[in-house]
Amino acid sequence: MFHTVAIVGATGAVGKEFISLIEQRGLQAERFVLLASARSAGQTLDVRGEPHTVQDLATTPFDGVDVAFFSAGGGRSKEFAPRAAAAGAVVIDNSSAFRMDPNVPLVVPEVNPEDVRTHQGIIANPNCSTILMNVPVWPLHKANPLRRIVVSTYQAASGAGLSAMLELEEQTRDVLAGRKPEPKVFPFPIAFNLFSHNSAIGPEGYNEEEIKMVRETRKIFHAPELAITATCVRVPVLRAHSEAVNLTFSRPITENEVREILSAAPGVRVVDQRDPQHFPMPIEASGADDVLVGRIRRDISQPDGCGIELFLSGDQLRKGAALNGIQIAELLAHQ
Amino acid sequence: MFHTVAIVGATGAVGKEFISLIEQRGLQAERFVLLASARSAGQTLDVRGEPHTVQDLATTPFDGVDVAFFSAGGGRSKEFAPRAAAAGAVVIDNSSAFRMDPNVPLVVPEVNPEDVRTHQGIIANPNCSTILMNVPVWPLHKANPLRRIVVSTYQAASGAGLSAMLELEEQTRDVLAGRKPEPKVFPFPIAFNLFSHNSAIGPEGYNEEEIKMVRETRKIFHAPELAITATCVRVPVLRAHSEAVNLTFSRPITENEVREILSAAPGVRVVDQRDPQHFPMPIEASGADDVLVGRIRRDISQPDGCGIELFLSGDQLRKGAALNGIQIAELLAHQ
Repeated sequence: MFHTVAIVGATGAVGKEFISLIEQRGLQAERFVLLASARSAGQTLDVRGEPHTVQDLATTPFDGVDVAFFSAGGGRSKEFAPRAAAAGAVVIDNSSAFRMDPNVPLVVPEVNPEDVRTHQGIIANPNCSTILMNVPVWPLHKANPLRRIVVSTYQAASGAGLSAMLELEEQTRDVLAGRKPEPKVFPFPIAFNLFSHNSAIGPEGYNEEEIKMVRETRKIFHAPELAITATCVRVPVLRAHSEAVNLTFSRPITENEVREILSAAPGVRVVDQRDPQHFPMPIEASGADDVLVGRIRRDISQPDGCGIELFLSGDQLRKGAALNGIQIAELLAHQ
Repeated sequence: MFHTVAIVGATGAVGKEFISLIEQRGLQAERFVLLASARSAGQTLDVRGEPHTVQDLATTPFDGVDVAFFSAGGGRSKEFAPRAAAAGAVVIDNSSAFRMDPNVPLVVPEVNPEDVRTHQGIIANPNCSTILMNVPVWPLHKANPLRRIVVSTYQAASGAGLSAMLELEEQTRDVLAGRKPEPKVFPFPIAFNLFSHNSAIGPEGYNEEEIKMVRETRKIFHAPELAITATCVRVPVLRAHSEAVNLTFSRPITENEVREILSAAPGVRVVDQRDPQHFPMPIEASGADDVLVGRIRRDISQPDGCGIELFLSGDQLRKGAALNGIQIAELLAHQ
């Protein structure tokens, strides 16, 4: 039980998910403080049935706050998370600002809950695509250390916020009505289209989203040498990411072993029916807590029996963001 | 110059593309015969500005036909292609009916044009995802033999025909209006969703589309042992497929070598600008003849320097189907 819980970025897509999950998960606190930019301050949002006025992040002190969920962009996290931590709060930060900071634990509760203990006021919530991949891949890695991961993502609009989800709907209406879609949030039309994730491309030719999947997975798994390559793609889906994951293990592994491990894994729901077909889909992952995993099969391109293919879908706003943060807070509450 | 060219399945999405390409590519023939099922017979379609009545495939003989483009499903190909061949036509068959038949050449003109010569009346047009991957991958394989391909696809509705494209639009309208989408052509909702390609799953856990990419590529490349794994996914895009392709070569290869080879490769357009970003997208591939290729980068998960990542988009109805067939006919015309 916390005294005061703050939600920074309360009016955003992830912020709203935090509020709904606080209710659903029964996160206990005497007081909830909703914070956002000056532009959104003054709005009223219900938390556990009680109306709360959103306050201006820039002018509201963090005194008395135990836990602060930050989801207001990297810039605001960099500026305000250290202030919140200095005021005594534990910040659970959904931005990328502190994820690779060696003094900040980066936590997926199903993977490395013990890392929460090492925090110095800030705990980082990993990138959404990273979390969704890590939840099913970790128990497999524990059973049979991975040598290599090749992942291709199918990422929903929600990863770019509420305005991106609205843009997908608006543009789709435009295309169906014969109007030219007008990109505002995304640099390219998203309606009936897809494009390489538009985060900046680094010197190696990978975009930031891809590099996050590589580096964050290594940090979370405590496997600094793990070979990972990723291709991140935005698709016209609203709020669940999917990923095609090709795995190479140290030793041969069978489809049945993988299915058994995943069936017992926390946070995973195996959805892998071949006839009639039923596999992970964004519309079924949306609103679900679990990462749906299916298409589990031996990789026929690896004749040594060390390869496995799988396909997953998970809610980008829940397990990919707010739910993972709430679970980190639950770990703190149990300490 | 041919005497008579027949288009079987003339009223379908690929059939219509054949008709438009005959005009655009200037394919010469004295006579065009349009054929379709009894249900579609009687319709009138223009070929090179002249109205043509669609005739019933079941009752129209193939006498005098030099080339017959078949795109009316595997069942009709199995029944009528041998009849057309027996009547003296060369069948260019877009179905999967004969692709793996050792007596039937399977041809991507940029890859194995010489195989056309071995035909015995039927030439198979490969699967759309296979063609689009083969066009850029072949010149790389020629320069530095491939050891392994890991591909994940992002396949448009058009691969399931005109009715699937209409279903995507109709369902999207439904979802935007708050109505529940009703799947008819696809087994699952396609609007704002994606799902594992719904072709039948075989004993190894791969679906038919994936197995086609594996086996057809091996046949076209004359590389029966080439290690390939594929994950095929249907996405809410209208008519261009995309693919994330991870390649492992026999020897180290640089990003620049790949870019140079692809820049000179027939049927390929390199679209690979990092800042501001411009990479292959379905909306730009739609209606184009070339396969767009970008996101070319060294695979950081392969420290030996033998790995390359790339991303492609290509028009499923053109190079993925009708254009490849027309190019095969052009090879025949030059013989």
